[in-house]
Amino acid sequence: MGGAVLALSGGVGGAKLALGLQAELAAGDLHVLANTGDDFEHLGLRICPDIDTLLYTLGGLADPQQGWGIAGDSFHALAALGRLGGETWFRLGDGDLATHLWRTRELAAGRDLLSVTADLATRLAVAAAVHPMSADPVRTMVRTAAGELPFQRYFVREQCAPVVSGFRFDGIAAARANPDVMALLRGRALRCIVICPSNPYVSIDPILQLPGLWQALREHPAPVVLVSPIVAGAALKGPAAKMMAELGVPVTAVGVAGHYAAEYPGLVDHFVIDTADGTLGPAIDRLGMRVTVTATVMRSLDDKRRLARAVLELAGG
Amino acid sequence: MGGAVLALSGGVGGAKLALGLQAELAAGDLHVLANTGDDFEHLGLRICPDIDTLLYTLGGLADPQQGWGIAGDSFHALAALGRLGGETWFRLGDGDLATHLWRTRELAAGRDLLSVTADLATRLAVAAAVHPMSADPVRTMVRTAAGELPFQRYFVREQCAPVVSGFRFDGIAAARANPDVMALLRGRALRCIVICPSNPYVSIDPILQLPGLWQALREHPAPVVLVSPIVAGAALKGPAAKMMAELGVPVTAVGVAGHYAAEYPGLVDHFVIDTADGTLGPAIDRLGMRVTVTATVMRSLDDKRRLARAVLELAGG
Repeated sequence: MGGAVLALSGGVGGAKLALGLQAELAAGDLHVLANTGDDFEHLGLRICPDIDTLLYTLGGLADPQQGWGIAGDSFHALAALGRLGGETWFRLGDGDLATHLWRTRELAAGRDLLSVTADLATRLAVAAAVHPMSADPVRTMVRTAAGELPFQRYFVREQCAPVVSGFRFDGIAAARANPDVMALLRGRALRCIVICPSNPYVSIDPILQLPGLWQALREHPAPVVLVSPIVAGAALKGPAAKMMAELGVPVTAVGVAGHYAAEYPGLVDHFVIDTADGTLGPAIDRLGMRVTVTATVMRSLDDKRRLARAVLELAGG
Repeated sequence: MGGAVLALSGGVGGAKLALGLQAELAAGDLHVLANTGDDFEHLGLRICPDIDTLLYTLGGLADPQQGWGIAGDSFHALAALGRLGGETWFRLGDGDLATHLWRTRELAAGRDLLSVTADLATRLAVAAAVHPMSADPVRTMVRTAAGELPFQRYFVREQCAPVVSGFRFDGIAAARANPDVMALLRGRALRCIVICPSNPYVSIDPILQLPGLWQALREHPAPVVLVSPIVAGAALKGPAAKMMAELGVPVTAVGVAGHYAAEYPGLVDHFVIDTADGTLGPAIDRLGMRVTVTATVMRSLDDKRRLARAVLELAGG
């Protein structure tokens, strides 16, 4: 069965499944809706970490070990900046820097983030369409015991150390959900909507809370398949588990399901959890989601493709 | 004899003599007044080629072969930018890029070019004070048979190919000469004013034509010593000789002297020419400049120091 697939994704974990989906789908059939809540201005550059992780991953440039940046990138500019006393806490490789310079210049020339991102995807030979969630600025702020921190400060500079009490998506009420994706949803031709195994709070919530977006996803007839970012009580990457614990949410796939059920009632049709969490099925069933248990940890490209196939099978193969 | 020295300089050729002067003078005694007419905005960055050549040369970082940039610099960001289809005609090394990022950010934060340059000089361990000619934008435009071109387009992108008919220093009438240097001149405590062997038209003219500047130099009691950028009918570096030929000026030290005598009457007291041009002495004498003949080609640091000593001796050693 063919047809377009829309995948919601943050950075590293989501990009892995997106890569599997891209490999399994016909050219042009994968649309990725990317979180831009992590975007920030740094050294005068517009940096879009999740978009870049997606572009590098889907374009075959990503560093498979660290998950971000370009494989084999050097850090000579950053080292020189450090010698000048400049800020080096955000690790910018030399090749990565070119992406930010190019994007910043195109935006300064008056283009919007949607067209600039589409152009970058073409230039990086990415088969999938990568859609920023909005062309308007939305900035994730992390409420912590140390005060409210912009996301990258919390995530990179503070290394997620402050205890989290909540989140705020600055600018979201005025932000317009990506019109291309909204048109895609109105077209009702999607075969499947996938919520990738990304952080629910800081990767997926900023997307879903754009005005009208999650309701449009729910109204679309295609099944919505969520893949758990929590496996055996831990996040495979990033601070999701630590955040859940600090928010008093059970650090399990059930905790994840509970978050989606409470915030976006009726949105998620299928929840894919790991074989390590098979016993959690009944608790998730009770939240109104059909559970699929499979291996969700993606190390190799084969793992990614296999999980992608499992997700697509839920939408009829 | 001690005392401060002010040296006017463009890029590569001027920076060589400035390095010799820095090595010969006591710490704090060398002030370099740098051309900013070559400055431009590129890739969203503020690039100051002559200031950077001076900073890298005086800070011991310069590439001694090519004369610009940082020795051993890599070009990974530029290569990645090229793969994105970005502009790569201006060769930006990764380490060099850090300088432009740092400067651009500091300027965007509201600092002026004078304070940012002083700060960069400190961070790069430059002993001399490097003064931009103005904090205000002055942009050298080259009038050519192919139309008027911004300097870097002419110099780097067109590789000086278009035939030159004149120059215009956009913004110069409204630009304020560096107030620190004007105060230094009012203080009348300089021992010597040196015009380094830089291009008369595009390196030194933009400095001297700032409102009030050349008159203040002339009024200062210290001798003004010009070092010829033309040796044996050729420029050692850059397009000075080609420009002179295209402007119908004799491509000799006499042609250089004639330019200064006509544009800045009474400014130059001493003209240092190369031993290869010894026979030109009488013609330069007639323009009212005292001629010193010595070896002016600077290959080694010893050459630079020796020429610096010859210049300083004209001001009483």
